[in-house]
Amino acid sequence: MAKNDMSVKEELDQYYEELKKQNLGPLWYDLGHMVTKEPVHDVEPYLWKWKTIREYVLKAGKLLEPGKDAERRVVYLQNPSLLKRGLVGYGTHTLYAGIQLLLPGESAPSHHHSQSAIRFVIEGDGAYTAVNGEKTYMERGDMILTPAWTWHEHKHEGTEPMFWLDGLDVGLVKTMAASFFEPYEEETYPMEAPENYSTKQFSMGAFKKLNESKEPGYPSPIFGYKFDRVKYLLDEMTEADNDPYDGYAIEYINPTTGGSADSRIGTMMQKLKSGQQTKAHRHVHSAIFHVLEGSGYTVINGEKFEWEKGDFFILPPWSLHEHVNTGESDVFLFSFNDKPVMEKLDLEYSEVYEDNDGHQIVEKVFVPEN
Amino acid sequence: MAKNDMSVKEELDQYYEELKKQNLGPLWYDLGHMVTKEPVHDVEPYLWKWKTIREYVLKAGKLLEPGKDAERRVVYLQNPSLLKRGLVGYGTHTLYAGIQLLLPGESAPSHHHSQSAIRFVIEGDGAYTAVNGEKTYMERGDMILTPAWTWHEHKHEGTEPMFWLDGLDVGLVKTMAASFFEPYEEETYPMEAPENYSTKQFSMGAFKKLNESKEPGYPSPIFGYKFDRVKYLLDEMTEADNDPYDGYAIEYINPTTGGSADSRIGTMMQKLKSGQQTKAHRHVHSAIFHVLEGSGYTVINGEKFEWEKGDFFILPPWSLHEHVNTGESDVFLFSFNDKPVMEKLDLEYSEVYEDNDGHQIVEKVFVPEN
Amino acid sequence: MAKNDMSVKEELDQYYEELKKQNLGPLWYDLGHMVTKEPVHDVEPYLWKWKTIREYVLKAGKLLEPGKDAERRVVYLQNPSLLKRGLVGYGTHTLYAGIQLLLPGESAPSHHHSQSAIRFVIEGDGAYTAVNGEKTYMERGDMILTPAWTWHEHKHEGTEPMFWLDGLDVGLVKTMAASFFEPYEEETYPMEAPENYSTKQFSMGAFKKLNESKEPGYPSPIFGYKFDRVKYLLDEMTEADNDPYDGYAIEYINPTTGGSADSRIGTMMQKLKSGQQTKAHRHVHSAIFHVLEGSGYTVINGEKFEWEKGDFFILPPWSLHEHVNTGESDVFLFSFNDKPVMEKLDLEYSEVYEDNDGHQIVEKVFVPEN
Amino acid sequence: MAKNDMSVKEELDQYYEELKKQNLGPLWYDLGHMVTKEPVHDVEPYLWKWKTIREYVLKAGKLLEPGKDAERRVVYLQNPSLLKRGLVGYGTHTLYAGIQLLLPGESAPSHHHSQSAIRFVIEGDGAYTAVNGEKTYMERGDMILTPAWTWHEHKHEGTEPMFWLDGLDVGLVKTMAASFFEPYEEETYPMEAPENYSTKQFSMGAFKKLNESKEPGYPSPIFGYKFDRVKYLLDEMTEADNDPYDGYAIEYINPTTGGSADSRIGTMMQKLKSGQQTKAHRHVHSAIFHVLEGSGYTVINGEKFEWEKGDFFILPPWSLHEHVNTGESDVFLFSFNDKPVMEKLDLEYSEVYEDNDGHQIVEKVFVPEN
Ligand SMILES: [Fe+2]
Ligand SMILES: [Fe+2]
Ligand SMILES: [Fe+2]
Ligand SMILES: [Fe+2]
Ligand SMILES: [Fe+2]
Ligand SMILES: [Fe+2]
Ligand SMILES: [Fe+2]
Ligand SMILES: [Fe+2]
Repeated sequence: MAKNDMSVKEELDQYYEELKKQNLGPLWYDLGHMVTKEPVHDVEPYLWKWKTIREYVLKAGKLLEPGKDAERRVVYLQNPSLLKRGLVGYGTHTLYAGIQLLLPGESAPSHHHSQSAIRFVIEGDGAYTAVNGEKTYMERGDMILTPAWTWHEHKHEGTEPMFWLDGLDVGLVKTMAASFFEPYEEETYPMEAPENYSTKQFSMGAFKKLNESKEPGYPSPIFGYKFDRVKYLLDEMTEADNDPYDGYAIEYINPTTGGSADSRIGTMMQKLKSGQQTKAHRHVHSAIFHVLEGSGYTVINGEKFEWEKGDFFILPPWSLHEHVNTGESDVFLFSFNDKPVMEKLDLEYSEVYEDNDGHQIVEKVFVPEN
Repeated sequence: MAKNDMSVKEELDQYYEELKKQNLGPLWYDLGHMVTKEPVHDVEPYLWKWKTIREYVLKAGKLLEPGKDAERRVVYLQNPSLLKRGLVGYGTHTLYAGIQLLLPGESAPSHHHSQSAIRFVIEGDGAYTAVNGEKTYMERGDMILTPAWTWHEHKHEGTEPMFWLDGLDVGLVKTMAASFFEPYEEETYPMEAPENYSTKQFSMGAFKKLNESKEPGYPSPIFGYKFDRVKYLLDEMTEADNDPYDGYAIEYINPTTGGSADSRIGTMMQKLKSGQQTKAHRHVHSAIFHVLEGSGYTVINGEKFEWEKGDFFILPPWSLHEHVNTGESDVFLFSFNDKPVMEKLDLEYSEVYEDNDGHQIVEKVFVPEN
Repeated sequence: MAKNDMSVKEELDQYYEELKKQNLGPLWYDLGHMVTKEPVHDVEPYLWKWKTIREYVLKAGKLLEPGKDAERRVVYLQNPSLLKRGLVGYGTHTLYAGIQLLLPGESAPSHHHSQSAIRFVIEGDGAYTAVNGEKTYMERGDMILTPAWTWHEHKHEGTEPMFWLDGLDVGLVKTMAASFFEPYEEETYPMEAPENYSTKQFSMGAFKKLNESKEPGYPSPIFGYKFDRVKYLLDEMTEADNDPYDGYAIEYINPTTGGSADSRIGTMMQKLKSGQQTKAHRHVHSAIFHVLEGSGYTVINGEKFEWEKGDFFILPPWSLHEHVNTGESDVFLFSFNDKPVMEKLDLEYSEVYEDNDGHQIVEKVFVPEN
Repeated sequence: MAKNDMSVKEELDQYYEELKKQNLGPLWYDLGHMVTKEPVHDVEPYLWKWKTIREYVLKAGKLLEPGKDAERRVVYLQNPSLLKRGLVGYGTHTLYAGIQLLLPGESAPSHHHSQSAIRFVIEGDGAYTAVNGEKTYMERGDMILTPAWTWHEHKHEGTEPMFWLDGLDVGLVKTMAASFFEPYEEETYPMEAPENYSTKQFSMGAFKKLNESKEPGYPSPIFGYKFDRVKYLLDEMTEADNDPYDGYAIEYINPTTGGSADSRIGTMMQKLKSGQQTKAHRHVHSAIFHVLEGSGYTVINGEKFEWEKGDFFILPPWSLHEHVNTGESDVFLFSFNDKPVMEKLDLEYSEVYEDNDGHQIVEKVFVPEN
C-alpha cells in the first residue's frame, strides 16, 4: 500500500475486472448494497378507489364465468412500482390482493396451493367457502381462512352479487421458489363436515374424542371469523386499549396457539373514532389495507392518501404511517400483513416517529395515475 | 459371610436394631415395600346410591344455610377404606367428591384455594358459578371449571333446588403439603366480565387485542362446557370411535393446549348403548364416576357394582374395570380423574386384561354397608 | 333455624351420626382440615452425622454383598416423624435418601423402576454407573442421573470403598400408587454406548444424524454432572449472583429444556463464604441436604441444626430456613428436592421472612435422639 | 358470452388494456405465472475452483487491509444467473458465500447485522471469532456461528494466512426488506466471557444459576462446532445410517431445541466413501456446497459438476441432484442451506427421482465460463 493512490486505484479496477470474469466479487465494494443500514426496497405506497375496482370487477362478471373461463374470477391490485420490476400481481413484495366476484348460482372449483389465503367479505351474503369439505357461510365483514394446501372452493347460494377480497402471500412464495398448485380431480371436494362447524366448534366448550391426539398448532381449528364479534369486541374497548399507533385494534388468532389465525398472513381490524388520529411509526412488515367503513386519510412517508369506504391501499415495509378519521362515524380498517413471517424469521423490528409530536409533515397528496 | 447361618441372622438382627436407634434403615430389608413391583395402595372401590345422597343433602338444606352456617352446603362421599387410614373426605387417594345444594335465592360466598375444582350439574338450573367475576349459568349435565386459585362463588336465581357435584383434588394437595385457602374480603367478587363470556368467546372466531400477549396454556379460556354439545358429539360418533375399554367417550379439553380442561383434574363423558359391554383394563390413574343417565353395572377387580341414574362410585388406581349397560336406553357416565397429574409426572401406565376374552369373572356383588 | 341452639346442636349431631353410617360427611364441619389455610403436614426436620452413617454403612459392607445378599447395599435415612405415621424409608413426604457402599470389585445388578434417582458421590472414585448401557465414571462431588424407568447398574473398578448418596422420589411414587419395578433379565445390560458419552456429547458442538428426530425433553441427554464444573461456576460468581436466601447457588439442568436435570427431582449446589449467613424463607417444596464441604448450621422453624462435612439434614415443606457458614473456608451444600413436581402441578409457592431483618430467633438446638 | 369468439377476444383485449391503466390485472390471465404448479426460479447451478478463488483472495490480501480499507476482506461467489437479474452477491436467491482472508496479526472490527452468518474454516488456524465478547478459536473444518444481531469480530493470532467461508442469508434478508447493520462504536467489543466458553459449556454437565431463566431457544448456546467431533460421529456411523440421497450425514444443531444450529441457516456435513454414489432427489430448499476433502462430481438437473478439495458449487431450489465419490479416500462435503426458513414457513417439500434406478442421465458437463 506504499504506492501512490492513482496506481492503487488502477490496480484495484483491474482486479475487479478480473474477479468479475471469474464470477467473483469484492465484498468491500458491494457490502453497502448487500447489507444495508436500514431496509431498502422497491415497494411504493398506492391507493385504489373502490368505485373503480367495483366497476371493473362487475365488467369481468359479464365477460367470463368462473370454473369455465377462469379458475377464479378475480381482478387483482397491481402495485405499479413493482410492475416496473417485472413483478406481475404484486401488492407488496410478499402480499397479493385480488377482488373476487361470484354471481348467484355460480361456483369456483376446488383446488389447493402452497400459498396461504384469507378472504374478507366486501359486499353480499349467501355464498360459502368450503375448506376440506367444510362449508363456512360468508357475510359482509367476515374473515375466512383457507390455509395453505387445504382444498377450497366457493359457491354462491344467495341472490345478489358477492364481492370479497382474496389476500395471498403470492410474492413470498414466489420469492422462496416454493409454489405448488393442483386442481382437485373433481369440481367439488366431498362435503363431509357439518356446516360452519369450525366456527361453532368452540361455542359450547371444547372437547376431543378419547385418545384423539389434538395437537395445538397449524392450521387454526376455526375457519370463519365473524364481523359481529369483531365489532362487539372493538366497541367494548376502553381508552386503555387505544394504541397510539393503531387506535382500537384486534388481531384474528388461532385459539390453539394464541398466534396469528393464518400461520403466515397476519390479519387485523382497527377502529378509529370520529376525529381520531394515530401517531406515526414504521416496521419491517408490510400490509394491504381495506376500508370497511368510514372515511379519512393515511400519511405514508409524508404523502397523504385519502380514502373512503371500500378503498384499498398499500403500506410498504419500513414506511412511516399514521391514520386519521375525518368523518362523523367510526372508521373500520381491515388489513392483512406479513408480520407472522417476519416474526418467525426473527426479522421484525419497529420504530416510532418522535419528531413533531409523532406526526409527519404532509409533503404531497396522492392522486391515482389516471 | 463364612459364619453359620444362625449367627449371621443374629448379627443382622442386632445390626437392624442398632440402625433403628440411629434413625437409619437397611434398604435390602425394606426395598420390597418401598419400591413395589406394581402399585400398592389402600383405596377400595365403593358405590353410593343417589336416593340416599339426595335425601341427606336435602336434609342439610333444612339444617343450615350457605354463607351463614357453612362456607358451602356440601355433603361429601367418604371412602370407608380411606377413613380407616384417617383420611377424612377422601374419595380416592387424590380425589374428593361432594354434593352441593343451593336453594332458590341462596348464594355461596367468594373464596379461592390451591385445590382445583370442577362442577357437574345433577339437578336443576338457574344458578350461576362466577369465576374471577365472570358468571357461567349452569344446566343439568354441564361441566364448569373453577381452576385452582381463581376466585369463585355461586348464586341461585332459579326456582327449584339445584344439586351439583364438586370434584376437587383434595387428597393430592394435602399429600403434597400444598393447601392454601383464602376467603374473599367481601361476599362477592366484582362482576366485571360479560355473562357466559368464556363459553361464548370462541363461538364466532378467535381474537386478541393488539399487543395483548395471550399465552396458550393454563387455565382454560373456557369455563362452561355444555352437555348439549357433549351429547351431540357422542351421538355423532360412529362404530370406529367406539373404544373397547371406554365405549363412546369424549374428554373435556383446554382449546389452547389440546390437553385436559383443568390442568390437574381430568374429565370424561362415556356413552354406552343399550346392551353394550366394555372390556377390562387398568391404569395408574384413579377416578370417581357419576351416572348421568341409564342403568347397568361395573365390575372392579372381580366385584360387581350395580348402578342407576344419579349413583356415584369409586375406581381405585391400578384396578381392573369394565362397564355394562343393562338398560333399554343409552347410558351416560361422567367421571373425573387424576390422569393429568400422572401424565405430568410421567407416572401413568395402563394394561389391558387379556384372559377370558377381556372379561373378569364376577366373584362377588357389592352391597353398601347399610 | 328458629329453634333454640341446643336442639339445633342435637339435631346436627344426630344428622352427622347418620351421615357417617352412609359413608357420607358434612363438608362444613371438616372443611378446615381438608382445605387448610396453609400447608399442614407431618414432616419434621432432622439431622444425621456422617460419622455415624459411615460407621453403619461400613458395617453393612461386612455383613452382606450387593447382587447376592442385597439388590443394593444401602443404608437409608429414616425420618422419625414419618416412621410414627408408618412411613418406612421416608426422608420427607416425597423424598428418600440412602447411602450406598460399593467395595472394590463389587457390582450392583441392572434393574429399572418408575422412581427417579439421582446419585451424589461422597467418597472415592473408580466406580461407574451405567444407564441404558452407557457408563459414567464417578468422582467425589459428581451428580449422576438414573432417570425413571432407565436400566441402571453400578460397578466398582477402583481400589478404595466408594460411598454415594442415592436420592429417589420414593414417597411421591408410593403416594401416587405408581410404583413399578423390574430386575433386568441378566446381571448386566449390554454396554453399547461409548464411556462417558453423554457427559462429553455436547463438549465440541451439538449434532444429530440427518433425519434423526431429536426431540428436546425428557430425559436429559447428559447423565454425568462434574463437580469440577460446578465449583468453577460457583467460584466465577460475583456478589450480584449472591441470592439473599440461598447464597451462591446453581441448579443442575437438562440442556434441552432449561429445566431441572431430572424431570421430577430438583438438584442444587449452594456455596456460602466464610461467615456468610442467608435470610430466612419458606416454600412448598421440601429438600434433603448433604454437606459436601465446610461447617455451620441451619435454622429451621426456630431450631438450630449444626452440621459439618458429610452430614445430612431434612428441610420439611413450608418451613422457614436460613443457613450460616461458621467455618474458615467455603461451605458447599448439595441438596435435592421436589420442586419440579410442585411446579409441574402448579403447587409451588414461596414466602420470605420479614421480621427481625429476615432472621429467626433460635429457640432450641437440635440434638440427635441418641 | 353468446358473441362470436373474435369479438370476445377483442373485448377482452380492450378490457385488459383498461385494467392496466387502472393498475389492476386479470387474475385468470396471469394466475399460471403467479401460482405455478411447481417452483419456478432464476437460480442456476454453478461451480468455482478453489485454486482460482484462493489466488484471487490472496491477491486481495496484498491490495487491502481489513478494518482500514475494508470492513471485511472477502471475495464473494457471484452466481452469474442471478447477476443477470441484477442480484449482486447472490449465490442462491437466499444465500451468500464469501471467502474471508485474515493474515497473521490482522483483525476485523466488531459489527452486527440482521443477517445470520456461519463460518467454515478452509485453511489455517490461530484466529478467533468473538461473539458478544466470547472468543472461539478456529481450526480447519470447524463451523462457527455468529447469529443474527450478535456483535462479532475476528482476530488472527497465528502465523499463517487463514481462509474461511462466510455463509450468510443476504438474499433472504434483502428480499424481506429487513436489512439492518451497525458497526460497534469501538474496534473491539469488551471480551467478557471465558475463551471457548460456549463450546465447552456442556462438556461437564449443564447448569444454570439459581433463578436464572434460561429459556431453550435462539440462539444456540454453543458457538463453536469442532470438526474432530463431526468426523468422529461420521466415522462411527454404520450402514444403517447411510441415507440413499445424502450418504452419511450429520446436521449441526442447537442443543436446546434439537433444531438447526443457526435458526435460519441450516448446516450439514456429508461423508461419501470411496466409490459411493447417492440417488437423486430434489427439495424446495437450496444450498451452497464446499468440498472439504476428496474428489468426485455432482449431477444437477442432468448436468455434471466435477469437484475436488476446496471447490464450491451451487444447488438451486427444486433441482434434482446426486453425488459421486470418484476418489480413493473419503469425501467430506460441507453445505449450508435455507431449509430452516422453508420449514418455519411450512414451505419445504421434497421428492425422490424414481426413473432409471434413481440416477439421472448426464446430458452435459459443466465447464466454468472462462
Ligand atoms: Fe385458491
Ligand atoms: Fe403499523
Ligand atoms: Fe371452592
Ligand atoms: Fe379406564
Ligand atoms: Fe435403582
Ligand atoms: Fe430454600
Ligand atoms: Fe458480519
Ligand atoms: Fe439434497
